[in-house]
Amino acid sequence: MAALDLPRVHDALRARSPLIQCITNTVVQQFSANVLLALRASPAMLDHEADAAQFAGFADGLLVNFGTASNQQLLAADVAIDIAQEQGKPWVLDPVSVGLADFRTRKIHQTLARQPTVVRGNASEILALAGMGQGGHGTDSRDEVQAALPAAVALARRYGSVIAISGAEDAVVALQGDGQVRIARVAGGHVLMTRVIGTGCSLGAAMAAYLACQSSTGADAVFAATVAAQAHFARAGSAAAQVTQAPGSFAVAFLDALHLLQPDDFSDVRLQVQTSSQEVWS
Amino acid sequence: MAALDLPRVHDALRARSPLIQCITNTVVQQFSANVLLALRASPAMLDHEADAAQFAGFADGLLVNFGTASNQQLLAADVAIDIAQEQGKPWVLDPVSVGLADFRTRKIHQTLARQPTVVRGNASEILALAGMGQGGHGTDSRDEVQAALPAAVALARRYGSVIAISGAEDAVVALQGDGQVRIARVAGGHVLMTRVIGTGCSLGAAMAAYLACQSSTGADAVFAATVAAQAHFARAGSAAAQVTQAPGSFAVAFLDALHLLQPDDFSDVRLQVQTSSQEVWS
Amino acid sequence: MAALDLPRVHDALRARSPLIQCITNTVVQQFSANVLLALRASPAMLDHEADAAQFAGFADGLLVNFGTASNQQLLAADVAIDIAQEQGKPWVLDPVSVGLADFRTRKIHQTLARQPTVVRGNASEILALAGMGQGGHGTDSRDEVQAALPAAVALARRYGSVIAISGAEDAVVALQGDGQVRIARVAGGHVLMTRVIGTGCSLGAAMAAYLACQSSTGADAVFAATVAAQAHFARAGSAAAQVTQAPGSFAVAFLDALHLLQPDDFSDVRLQVQTSSQEVWS
Repeated sequence: MAALDLPRVHDALRARSPLIQCITNTVVQQFSANVLLALRASPAMLDHEADAAQFAGFADGLLVNFGTASNQQLLAADVAIDIAQEQGKPWVLDPVSVGLADFRTRKIHQTLARQPTVVRGNASEILALAGMGQGGHGTDSRDEVQAALPAAVALARRYGSVIAISGAEDAVVALQGDGQVRIARVAGGHVLMTRVIGTGCSLGAAMAAYLACQSSTGADAVFAATVAAQAHFARAGSAAAQVTQAPGSFAVAFLDALHLLQPDDFSDVRLQVQTSSQEVWS
Repeated sequence: MAALDLPRVHDALRARSPLIQCITNTVVQQFSANVLLALRASPAMLDHEADAAQFAGFADGLLVNFGTASNQQLLAADVAIDIAQEQGKPWVLDPVSVGLADFRTRKIHQTLARQPTVVRGNASEILALAGMGQGGHGTDSRDEVQAALPAAVALARRYGSVIAISGAEDAVVALQGDGQVRIARVAGGHVLMTRVIGTGCSLGAAMAAYLACQSSTGADAVFAATVAAQAHFARAGSAAAQVTQAPGSFAVAFLDALHLLQPDDFSDVRLQVQTSSQEVWS
Repeated sequence: MAALDLPRVHDALRARSPLIQCITNTVVQQFSANVLLALRASPAMLDHEADAAQFAGFADGLLVNFGTASNQQLLAADVAIDIAQEQGKPWVLDPVSVGLADFRTRKIHQTLARQPTVVRGNASEILALAGMGQGGHGTDSRDEVQAALPAAVALARRYGSVIAISGAEDAVVALQGDGQVRIARVAGGHVLMTRVIGTGCSLGAAMAAYLACQSSTGADAVFAATVAAQAHFARAGSAAAQVTQAPGSFAVAFLDALHLLQPDDFSDVRLQVQTSSQEVWS
């Protein structure tokens, strides 16, 4: 595999300013839009079934999150994904609330079966998605990232998606062409990120933005973009925690840091990349 | 009645981290989620009729607020309340926008008739709910808390709910077993709270969180939890006003203060508790 | 025409505290409500077709923005506009997302045909509305204000609306009784306003608030109110940029500045007013 050149991946985002369609829950729409703007991307939350598909053809990437899904959003996502797939555009599924209630869980599984480019959730959500756990506690995870690695590997094998797990130390899991599993771990961030709504959901939007700026949708490019988004959030979380220890001002400092970080700030991100020949989850 | 041991009530909230379902208006969803997270509770805004009831069985408490109600939210609330009542879980009704338009007013009255654990509104809303006033001015109250006490007493007698009134000096009104009325007044807060959207609506969410952590749903426990939530907001509002005198930074400082306050900070809350043998509203 | 006495126009807003109905996209509802509160106006986001019209009769002004329009919002706006027009109340159309997808574009054009008091958009949106461009890039403009002046003049002639264009230097375009075109340019603001979601959409809400406080809906009063709202935002943006150079804290400082600005702060706003006898857009 190519080495992960995060400064270059980040540079591509700054150069491109991608337009990202977010069909996402209303709780985090404002924060997610501000995250995308802080990253110099353009957000658009069009989620009506009458024109979501047409707009997906105009946008550079798509996020789907059914946290407060209306019938309108469910229909809109269904047709927007059609277009993303036809045009080879990246799309991210955030399975927030999987396992909390049957209707939502079923819709999330139907969407997963369409093989998202990337699936991003916390450990409890990834476990629930793989049928190995009972889901989270609202947006809170009850499980550790490490415990969700086997679930992520199973999902990656079944759907071909890159699986991103958010937690104290994030992980990205992907299948390589040789059938081996590649796993990156990204350290950083801060526990206050769990006390601000949307730091998880907006990471899915950031991933769509990073993905949209890669020159290909090949496995290496998707892996690098997904890790770069995690690293960006981890760095910003660490930076914000230098400024404050309370959640209101942390949210503000986090958006500031997302915007102010420079490509070179990612050159020394503590990043482990392993393949499954090592028993990384034992 | 038992004395109001607010530090103990607050301690129970910190220990439990309850999961609160908010079927609430889209304007304040983000702020309400951040308030719950700042209080160390977990928010979940599931509001689809297909699974809101099932989720209500999973959550520890429920808030209903029809400020921007869709048909989906109206249907979802209706069945979620069913479950809360069947399982003896606390639920809070925020009657925001009562009296402003007929359809909404009717739906709020239908919901009130289901006897919420707590009803929380500003003085104008409580007066309108009791048929004694014309409602507020958007989210602004046109009446004083003192003027709404008779309305609150009437509502408490009619529906058995504890009635919480937000204003310059908050009030909580409850019927005792002996038919006497108990009234608590909570001083504090700051007028800038009326210049930040959601400081009222999110208080209903905070009440649901406090209620969910009481060991019983008896009258004393409900009264104490409701007062504790008001005291928490009043303290946080006073603390934020020490930091700033402008609304943008006030909202940030308010969330910070909600999170940073400690149980002991509630030991000296200026709190008056009276019974109706005194003519408290004259 | 009367001279633009912006301190007086601002004073009227502070004195009246108008109630503004916003049928607007869910991404910016919280920020728009906070903007209105910072301006000492009262927001109300009632957007259900069952009572939006009745509430429009109670409110002092109306904003319509279909950025994330649901069928409910489309129906609600349609009947709320009826009432605003019958009662001679001001209403503002924000054509955000025009040109991005056909269904939305058609609904925006249908609404424009009802002759809003004011239309507010960025340069790309105004161009698209006049059939002269392809629309924006999400909420971002791809065109300069100057380039959109002919489109604004065409729209003003066709619909009788005052046209407000947001950009590096804002513009307001209006027809005079003598058929001449009057154009105001408002300098100020800061590029970080484009990195905070809602600074454009909430300006439409602010315009509705300013309009609602004018003693007439005559051409001069509408022109003055529209310019005053732009000047208020430009001043607040400049003030916020004195405090910070990052978007999270900029949003906070912007709300603070909106609230803290005094009538006298508008006495020296750099404002150019011209008529079309000069070739202002050449």
